Amino acid sequence: MESKLPHVGTSIFSKMTALANQHGALNLSQGFPEFDAPERLKLRLTQHVQAGMNQYAPSPGMPALQQQIALLAERKYGAQVDAAAQVTVTAGATEALFVAIQTLVRPGDEVIVFDPAYDSYAPAIELAGGRSVHIALRSPDYRIDWQQVAAAVTTKTRGIIINTPHNPSAKTLKAADMAALKALVAEHDLYVISDEVYEHITFDAQPHLSALRDPTLAARAMVVASFGKTFHCTGWKLGYCIAPEALTSEFRKIHQYVTFSCFTPAQLALADMLNEEPEHVDALADFYQHKRDLLIEALQSSRFTILPSEGSYFLLLDYSAISSLDDVGFCDYLVEAIGVAAIPLSVFYADGSSDKVIRLCFAKEDNTLLEAAKRLCQL
Amino acid sequence: MESKLPHVGTSIFSKMTALANQHGALNLSQGFPEFDAPERLKLRLTQHVQAGMNQYAPSPGMPALQQQIALLAERKYGAQVDAAAQVTVTAGATEALFVAIQTLVRPGDEVIVFDPAYDSYAPAIELAGGRSVHIALRSPDYRIDWQQVAAAVTTKTRGIIINTPHNPSAKTLKAADMAALKALVAEHDLYVISDEVYEHITFDAQPHLSALRDPTLAARAMVVASFGKTFHCTGWKLGYCIAPEALTSEFRKIHQYVTFSCFTPAQLALADMLNEEPEHVDALADFYQHKRDLLIEALQSSRFTILPSEGSYFLLLDYSAISSLDDVGFCDYLVEAIGVAAIPLSVFYADGSSDKVIRLCFAKEDNTLLEAAKRLCQL
Ligand SMILES: CSCCC(=O)C(=O)O
Ligand SMILES: CSCCC(=O)C(=O)O
Repeated sequence: MESKLPHVGTSIFSKMTALANQHGALNLSQGFPEFDAPERLKLRLTQHVQAGMNQYAPSPGMPALQQQIALLAERKYGAQVDAAAQVTVTAGATEALFVAIQTLVRPGDEVIVFDPAYDSYAPAIELAGGRSVHIALRSPDYRIDWQQVAAAVTTKTRGIIINTPHNPSAKTLKAADMAALKALVAEHDLYVISDEVYEHITFDAQPHLSALRDPTLAARAMVVASFGKTFHCTGWKLGYCIAPEALTSEFRKIHQYVTFSCFTPAQLALADMLNEEPEHVDALADFYQHKRDLLIEALQSSRFTILPSEGSYFLLLDYSAISSLDDVGFCDYLVEAIGVAAIPLSVFYADGSSDKVIRLCFAKEDNTLLEAAKRLCQL
Repeated sequence: MESKLPHVGTSIFSKMTALANQHGALNLSQGFPEFDAPERLKLRLTQHVQAGMNQYAPSPGMPALQQQIALLAERKYGAQVDAAAQVTVTAGATEALFVAIQTLVRPGDEVIVFDPAYDSYAPAIELAGGRSVHIALRSPDYRIDWQQVAAAVTTKTRGIIINTPHNPSAKTLKAADMAALKALVAEHDLYVISDEVYEHITFDAQPHLSALRDPTLAARAMVVASFGKTFHCTGWKLGYCIAPEALTSEFRKIHQYVTFSCFTPAQLALADMLNEEPEHVDALADFYQHKRDLLIEALQSSRFTILPSEGSYFLLLDYSAISSLDDVGFCDYLVEAIGVAAIPLSVFYADGSSDKVIRLCFAKEDNTLLEAAKRLCQL
């Protein structure tokens, strides 16, 4: 049969993790932690399962979790979020992104995305009958030229997808970016999908500039977040979307037919965790900054050029001094020759262009990072 | 903002459960069990969580679970299913249905659905840019006239959605239905989405006629099933789709951008359960037949006409001798006047037509069923 997504194959994350397993490589490719979820979270899940909380949650989410999400947004961003009317729990940030895109995008609509872009944005836009308009950000700065963005807006433009801290570039948007975005979307009456799954992982005492901080911007924004990244439980597939009430009501119409609801006992356990151990979230940035610094330090003697990582749990390396292979070939080579799996950046560009940069995930045990760095230093 | 689904509100299941809770009514509306998941299943989940199996599963599912699903299909239906190439684990049957529809339906395509139809089919078809063509089956037989179906096929018809055992009518498709379906789809080169979430709940020693039983039909079919219904854990949101390899490959392209993967430890626990306690599945039909018979017996002195329930955990009641209210009004009346929540059947018809029939869910404790029946007998 003909394909709805003819350009799409298996995701790079699935591919590299499979390759890493096959070669017994250190897997610094797909973004998931090597360490486990907090003991309290696992204990609470167990308790809710044993207590029989195993039937359908309400489609928008368990009220206790919606409440904790709203409180967190208020505590961190000073945002006034109505838990019942604005928070929807989803099957990971992936479902939140998919449903947000389905909510906004009508056939013929255009959506601006910044390359390197997370791999689900464009296919989700395509499935909604829309067209993704790609603006390429380049190594080493990955800076957004907002005049270029303004020039890309047409009468068909429906919205812009931003992502901060950014995967894969590890850059964060700054106050000037948020101001430019706000002006642009107001002028052209656009919506924003703000992918903030690494919201709690920003380095060097920089605050995370959530779209929720500014009520004017928040009035046009669907903010997507992830518990998997925050609580080291990517396999639980829980995330959420915060949006204004009218957008949320449309979002929920679609969510109820995409997954209907999410794993009930884990929602309750995450609500407990946010309530009982708020310091977990607050400690996350330092936890990962230590790992970033450890990895950077261990790579000092390598021939890679290390790009600055401002947030997320990723680090970019420029290998142009080491190899003339393209980045896909170089990643294949790394797995086979030194047993380190990384992600090539060209797969995040619509045009497949490469700046000879690869992505490492440092959500790994210190020893894994040190061993990977040792191997990379041999090149 | 304008709506992508202007005709859609909150699902009837969410609405009636909320109303039931508000009135402290016996909730025989939304289809979920009042009893808990099996102890072994809960224990295994707990063990996998504690053992740290909390990161991303492969997008198509944990291999151990795919394997058990394929073995079950072979054991029950004699089907040859390639676990790795044909089985995809999903966030409940809801996601499986949504993704199957997205996989098949292109803008302008028509899909034939039988009313009363599960509420997600039509919006999912609409979001894919297709059009649902409704054939109404009527009380009390809900029999499909296959000549009428053949007459509804046009050059735009892409597929047919069947559902057996059928929610809400509690009817099962018979060998003659499956033969007619097979001939029709072969003649017009159509696909079948076969919603079989109640596959293990057929009564009076009738076998379930899965689309997987017939290789010719299976070659055109995407079969959707649910663990929530089978293992009393609707809140775990795990289901799956079995389809031919080429269809599965397209299905997975979309699944990876809708949810990517599902709750890892629950997948492992369900694999254990299928492997260690296969008798659970085999005992399910008798378990629910007892409840069906108990409820029917207890309703003998009522003024309802009881329609035959051949499968699923639903029972239809015709209330035309009792009230002249329409079925939505009658269900509202039931909650308020006697504290019993049911589902009106008109909401499952595209044209909203009513045969004065309501649906009861009998996946409840015996005492709940007896008390609900007692109240219904007072009318
Ligand atoms: C859903 S698998 C991808 C995980 C991830 O976010 C990444 O590696 O970038
Ligand atoms: C997803 S909520 C609906 C549950 C169900 O299948 C039903 O009540 O028919």
